[in-house]
Formats: sequence, C-alpha cells, structure tokens
Amino acid sequence: MESTHRELKERAWAANLEIPRRGLAIATFGNASAFDAAAGLLAIKPSGVAYESLRPADMVVLDLDGTVVEGALRPSSDTRTHLVLYRALRGLGGIVHTHSTHATGWAQACRAIPILGTTHADHLAEDVPCTALMTEAAAGRDYETETGNQILELFRTRHPLHTPMVLVAGHGPFTWGESVEQAVYHAQVLEEVARMAFITHTLNPGAARLPEHLVRKHFERKHGAAAYYGQR
Amino acid sequence: MESTHRELKERAWAANLEIPRRGLAIATFGNASAFDAAAGLLAIKPSGVAYESLRPADMVVLDLDGTVVEGALRPSSDTRTHLVLYRALRGLGGIVHTHSTHATGWAQACRAIPILGTTHADHLAEDVPCTALMTEAAAGRDYETETGNQILELFRTRHPLHTPMVLVAGHGPFTWGESVEQAVYHAQVLEEVARMAFITHTLNPGAARLPEHLVRKHFERKHGAAAYYGQR
Amino acid sequence: MESTHRELKERAWAANLEIPRRGLAIATFGNASAFDAAAGLLAIKPSGVAYESLRPADMVVLDLDGTVVEGALRPSSDTRTHLVLYRALRGLGGIVHTHSTHATGWAQACRAIPILGTTHADHLAEDVPCTALMTEAAAGRDYETETGNQILELFRTRHPLHTPMVLVAGHGPFTWGESVEQAVYHAQVLEEVARMAFITHTLNPGAARLPEHLVRKHFERKHGAAAYYGQR
Amino acid sequence: MESTHRELKERAWAANLEIPRRGLAIATFGNASAFDAAAGLLAIKPSGVAYESLRPADMVVLDLDGTVVEGALRPSSDTRTHLVLYRALRGLGGIVHTHSTHATGWAQACRAIPILGTTHADHLAEDVPCTALMTEAAAGRDYETETGNQILELFRTRHPLHTPMVLVAGHGPFTWGESVEQAVYHAQVLEEVARMAFITHTLNPGAARLPEHLVRKHFERKHGAAAYYGQR
Repeated sequence: MESTHRELKERAWAANLEIPRRGLAIATFGNASAFDAAAGLLAIKPSGVAYESLRPADMVVLDLDGTVVEGALRPSSDTRTHLVLYRALRGLGGIVHTHSTHATGWAQACRAIPILGTTHADHLAEDVPCTALMTEAAAGRDYETETGNQILELFRTRHPLHTPMVLVAGHGPFTWGESVEQAVYHAQVLEEVARMAFITHTLNPGAARLPEHLVRKHFERKHGAAAYYGQR
Repeated sequence: MESTHRELKERAWAANLEIPRRGLAIATFGNASAFDAAAGLLAIKPSGVAYESLRPADMVVLDLDGTVVEGALRPSSDTRTHLVLYRALRGLGGIVHTHSTHATGWAQACRAIPILGTTHADHLAEDVPCTALMTEAAAGRDYETETGNQILELFRTRHPLHTPMVLVAGHGPFTWGESVEQAVYHAQVLEEVARMAFITHTLNPGAARLPEHLVRKHFERKHGAAAYYGQR
Repeated sequence: MESTHRELKERAWAANLEIPRRGLAIATFGNASAFDAAAGLLAIKPSGVAYESLRPADMVVLDLDGTVVEGALRPSSDTRTHLVLYRALRGLGGIVHTHSTHATGWAQACRAIPILGTTHADHLAEDVPCTALMTEAAAGRDYETETGNQILELFRTRHPLHTPMVLVAGHGPFTWGESVEQAVYHAQVLEEVARMAFITHTLNPGAARLPEHLVRKHFERKHGAAAYYGQR
Repeated sequence: MESTHRELKERAWAANLEIPRRGLAIATFGNASAFDAAAGLLAIKPSGVAYESLRPADMVVLDLDGTVVEGALRPSSDTRTHLVLYRALRGLGGIVHTHSTHATGWAQACRAIPILGTTHADHLAEDVPCTALMTEAAAGRDYETETGNQILELFRTRHPLHTPMVLVAGHGPFTWGESVEQAVYHAQVLEEVARMAFITHTLNPGAARLPEHLVRKHFERKHGAAAYYGQR
C-alpha cells in the first residue's frame, strides 16, 4: 500500500539525515519531526535507529494525541516533547532535537547563551533561554511531557518563531521553525552561536552583551516589517 | 589453511578500523579486541601496525592465559590489560583502548569526568571513574597486567556493563561492551561526553552534577527493567 | 546577451565559494566582492543565497555609487560597507566578510587580536585592530555605511595593504587584498591567527606580545623592500 | 636531463604534501626536507609555493653549505635553519617545520609542553623544550641561522633522536627523525600532544607532570634496549 503521507515522511527523513551530516550529533542521538498543521499530523524518527540505515518508510506518523497513524516502528522516545510543543505553540512546521556539542555544553552548565554578537542577533533578539532543571516531582510524572512543559514555561511570554531555540538544562537543545528544514537550520545556527559564545566567554568571562540598539538593528534587518536581507 | 577463527578476527579487525575512522586516535595508537566467551578466545590487533595496512588475517588470536593460538604477528603491547579484564569481568564481548583527545585530556588531569548531563546519563549513571596513578612498585612489576589490576580495583563495587568505560590516570580510556561493536560505540560516546564536560567545565568550573533523579531517569530509559528507548 | 563583466563575476563567485570550502562560515553567512579599479566596478554576492546554489551569473555588478550595472538579484545586505571601503582605501582588489568562528569570538569580546607570534607577523605588523561598538546614533543612520565608516576610522593612520584585516566589534571580520583571491587568503589567515591566539590566551592570559624586533623581521621577510620569501 | 636525486626529491615532496593532509598547516606555511647523509645533500620545498601545485621536480637539492645542486626555484626561506640542524645533529634523515595550531599556541606562550601523559612519554621522556625568544642582536644577524642556533642551544645536553621535537618561542615547532617520514610522524604526534596538554591545562592549570617512573616505563617500552612495542 502506498503511503498517504509520503511527502511529510520524506521531509522528516531528510531533516533527520541532516543532523549527523552537519555534525550536530553522533550515533542515534537527536531527532527531527515535520508537522502538517492542516492535517494535524507529524512524522518523526523511530527510536534508536542509526542514521545510516534510516529510510523514509521508517518514519512514524502520529496525530497530536500521539496515536500512531502510520509506521511499524516505535517513535522516538522524545515524541511526547514534540507533541506538547506542536499543541501549544502556533506556526511550527518542524522541531529538531540534537545533542550538539557546544549547545549541550551550555545546557549542562544550566546557562542561557548570552547574546554577544550579530550572528546571534540575526536569528533571535535575546539570549538563548535555558529551562530550570526538572524537579524530582516532575521527573516522576511523564518525563518527556514534562520536558515539553518546561519549555512552554519559557514561552508564555515569548513568540516561538522569534525565539526558535531553547536549551533544556542538563540535557541539550530543541529548535524549531516554520518548516522542518528551518528547524534544522536553527539547530546548526545554535551550535555555531554556542561555539562562538564559548570562545568569547573563555577570552573574557565578563564580556558584555551586544547593546540593545545593535540587537534590534540586526534582528529587524532579517525579521522586521522593513527587513531587507535576502531576495524577497 | 583456512582460519578457524575467521569471524572473531574480522570483527576485531573492523572494530580496530573504526578507531581512526571515528577520530578516536592517530597513527597506531589504540587497539580493540573481540572476545568469544564460549571458546575462551580473543582476537586483538598486532602491535605497532598502521591502521591503513591492517588486514583481518593480521589479528592475533589468544586464549585467556595469553597463549597465541593463531597469528604470525606480535599482539598489541596492551594485550595483558585486555586479558586481566576478560578474566575478571563477566559479560564482556569486546574491549577498546584509545588515546582520544578529550578523554585523554581528563585522564592526564587525573580526574573522573563528572556526570553533567543526559548524554552521559544515557550511558552510565555515575562519573566516568579514573584510576589512581600507578605506583613505582606496581610499574616495576608487569606494567600492562598492573594497568588491568588498577581498573579492576575500581570495579570491585561496580557492574562493568553498567559502567562500560574508565580512565587510566596519566594514560587514557578503556571501554568495553557486550560486543566489540558496542565497545567501539562506548569509546565514541566517552570522547563526546569528555568534550562536552570540557566545555561545561571551562564555562563554569563549579558546574553541578546532574541531580540524581535525572541521572536515574535517563539511565533507566535506556537500561532499566522498564527501558523504553529503541526498538525492543 | 553576453555579460561584459564575466571575468569579474567569475572571480567574485569563486571567492564566495571558498568561504564555506575553507570553513569560514556556515549557511549564507559571509560575502566576497571583486573590484575592477580601472572600470570602477565591483561584483558581489547576492543577498541570502545559499553557497551551494550560487552561480557566476548570480553575482551583482555595481558602480562605486551603488548603482546596479548588471544582475537580476538584490546585492548582499553588506554591500554599502564594501562600497565605503573601496571608495576610501587605495589599492583594494577584493573584500571578504565572514563570520569565521574564532575571529568572531574575538570580535564579540570587542578585543584586538594581540600579535603573539610569527604566523601573525608574517601578514601584519601589529594587533588585528577592532572597531568600537557602534553608537545608537550611528546605528540609527545607514547601518552598513556606518560599519564602513567605523572601519575607516581605524585606517586614518594605517596602510590598508599592510593591515589587510579588521574586526568589527560585536560582529565579525572583514579582510581585503590586492585581489579578491588575496582577500580570501587573508580571511583564512585571520581565522587561524585568531584560533592560535585563543589557545595562547587560554594557556596564559598574560602572554606577552612578540617583541617588536621579531615582528619587524618577519613582516619584512615577506613584505619589505628586501623581502626574500616566495619566488619573486 | 634525468635527475640524479630523484628518490630524495620524491620523498621530500611526499612529506611536504603530508603537512596539509594531516592538518598541520594552511596555505604555504611549513616545509619538510629529506637528508641523504652519505651524499651530504638535502631536498627541500621551494619558498612560497602552494602545496596543491607542488611537484617532485620543484624540490630544491642543496649541499650542507647551502649551495644549490639541483632545482630552478628558490629554496624555503627556512632552509638555513635546516642546514644548521643537519650539520650539528647526528642521525637526522629529515626535518619538518609546521605552524600546527596547538603546538604554535604553546610556542606563542613561550612555554615548554609539560609531559602529562603516556601519549607524550611514548615519544620523548621530557617536556617538549621551548627556546628563548631571539634577542634583537641575534635577529639582526642571519635570522634563520640564528633560529637553528637557538635550537642547538637546547641540544647541547640532549640526544636529538630521543627528543625529536622542539618549539621555537613566538614561532612554532620543528620536528625531525631518522627519516623524513618519521619527522612528519613526529610533527603530527606533537600537535596531538599539544592539544591534549591544552585540554588538561585548561581543566587544571596546576596539573602535575607524569611521575618519572611512568615516563621511563613508557619511553622504554618503545625506545629502550628492552623495547617490546611494534614488530621488531
């Protein structure tokens, strides 16, 4: 039988392959999902399958309640975190979770990545936020759902497409975007921003944030109403 | 004459090739052995042979007393360390020794790698332990056997398959697993964990360990009785 | 219609491709322009186009007033910075802007890169200068023109071909040369010099500058009237 | 006319190509020479020629007085340093000079690389020595000859084949060996040892040297009268 979700699965599959290709995780670490808002369905990587043997047909399709609609394999163990985010945050077309080295280094330090330069400000206008460490009570409930809830806590007062990335304390990064391709791009940007901030912080632990007028200028060059970056 | 240990030698050979392929050692540094518990035999890399010219037939097969059963070359100078571990630790199917850069950096600092995040906790539920520096008396005896004995010292109270990696102070890492393929995987995980911990430690030398309830949660997601990671 | 600026566009295109090839930027970060002083024209990368899909015909040709002479796409958002530099600094045949990791790390720390060794002194005889952070008043005017003006501020008393590189505080590096190929070379040298200085500074934050007699000796080996490096 | 020094030139050429291939220098930085002690001749890289366009026929053959015996190009600007070393140190078959990143980072800090682990002790039984910074008086004489003299200063009391590497303060590393192939190997080992020492030093600036009994044990495993590493 032909899949009715072929394009969604192919895009999710291609995005998952980009994770090791861009050096954002080793082994089976990390996962990407693509979301079709109209259909209310997502396609996600199966759990614990090595990137090199992954095929489009291995992707698991679920609805927002987590019911498997298509696919023979068990979905990623982080699926419930993806579900929480898709249900609560408007406009997401894809989510990527990696264990990329420098972003994880900051997450393990339980520190937001300070906005130190324009590479960062071109993509978000504030520090990359970092959740609190999950409490024992929360970890005793549904762990992956609670991971999503901790992220949502930070997005009560934030626009998810203006801050398309977050660190989960003691764990690693989640990024997203209007499409899964953009979510992968944000995962790569985050790792590079984390690496640059590591270098700056090591050179000068007291390095100041980029002044607000430069943050605004760069963010609006790419994202404001008067954006003039790119070919639009 | 056809080898009677062909599969064991091929698996040991393939594992040895993964050491430079995954960036875990340069030149001839490092070695891997595959163990057949039923036969009581291991296949190990010959000493000082470059990875690029290594063939399956070059692997040396030995019994647990260290007697060469098959192979024309001298076995790795670290062979007696492997023998000590196979004799004393139950369930090992392979051992890998590398000089991977960050893990060796920690070993040279004579420090256990603190458990700072879930990448670490997904694989072991404690710091990566580090031996003491070998005393002059011990180094004056059989050096490689004593290296094995120093590792065993740490595993009197540990389950080797729950803590499948160790640092030898001033030297570098040894890892193992139920198979030699898993031992290679653990060598790669260890290097990545060591690199992440280096970044976190440089950002904040006083960074706290991951709380015990999160360590347990992640370790049991993959390894406990109720594990739900992967396709089992 | 055949382009009348084919060679200029091809050289600009090839230089842009070298940016990701030499690991000096990810995604669409960075841009290179080639300048034909006799014709008073430059060819520059279009804005926001991925390196992998870039073709020579996509290059945009402009005169020094910024009027597009050839090309269907919008030029790089940094074009006005290039224009300021070509108009004011004599002898430039190409300019490269990257977000290379270590150079950007220093720029984010708002610090000149100290001249610590001969790798640096082979290419310039002083610290790699760093601009001030742009004021709110300047950022409120034409941002890219002001970036150029801030660089010019540093070159009132410097020879641009003796100091072919600069850091823009909170942003990243600009480099140039007698040709666009040399500008790319200087971008690569700068990243390597920035990386070496990061290592030296981390080993010893108080590391002394290379003594002036050694700076002079190395710079003149390659650049003085009595230069004896290379095949001239 | 057929070259009478074909093998020497080919070995020098191949060794030079290994410098960028092993990531030990960018652009035209670095150079290797092969020495034929019986003939009293060396073959060395020409000055300022890019590695990718280098051919065996480009190598320059000189005698120990520095007279060119064969070759149309100007020899490396560092040739006189090589000559000083070949004239004074017995048993050298090749010399390699690189600007490899971490070794240069230590050289710029004007610090010997402390012997912190067995990767180091497998190759030399002491810190990697570092020269003093050259005085203004010496730099005013023949600079490259004086660089060689500064290295010799350190080898009055050292056996060059037991300590086959050195840092020139503020400059970078020189390595050598019984053959040019071994000199390249030592250049790669030095960079790796420098990188590991950087990590250890960053983790703990007060990290202790490897105890002398372990230094001896490892060095003699590979180099002593009772060496038992490799296939000899």
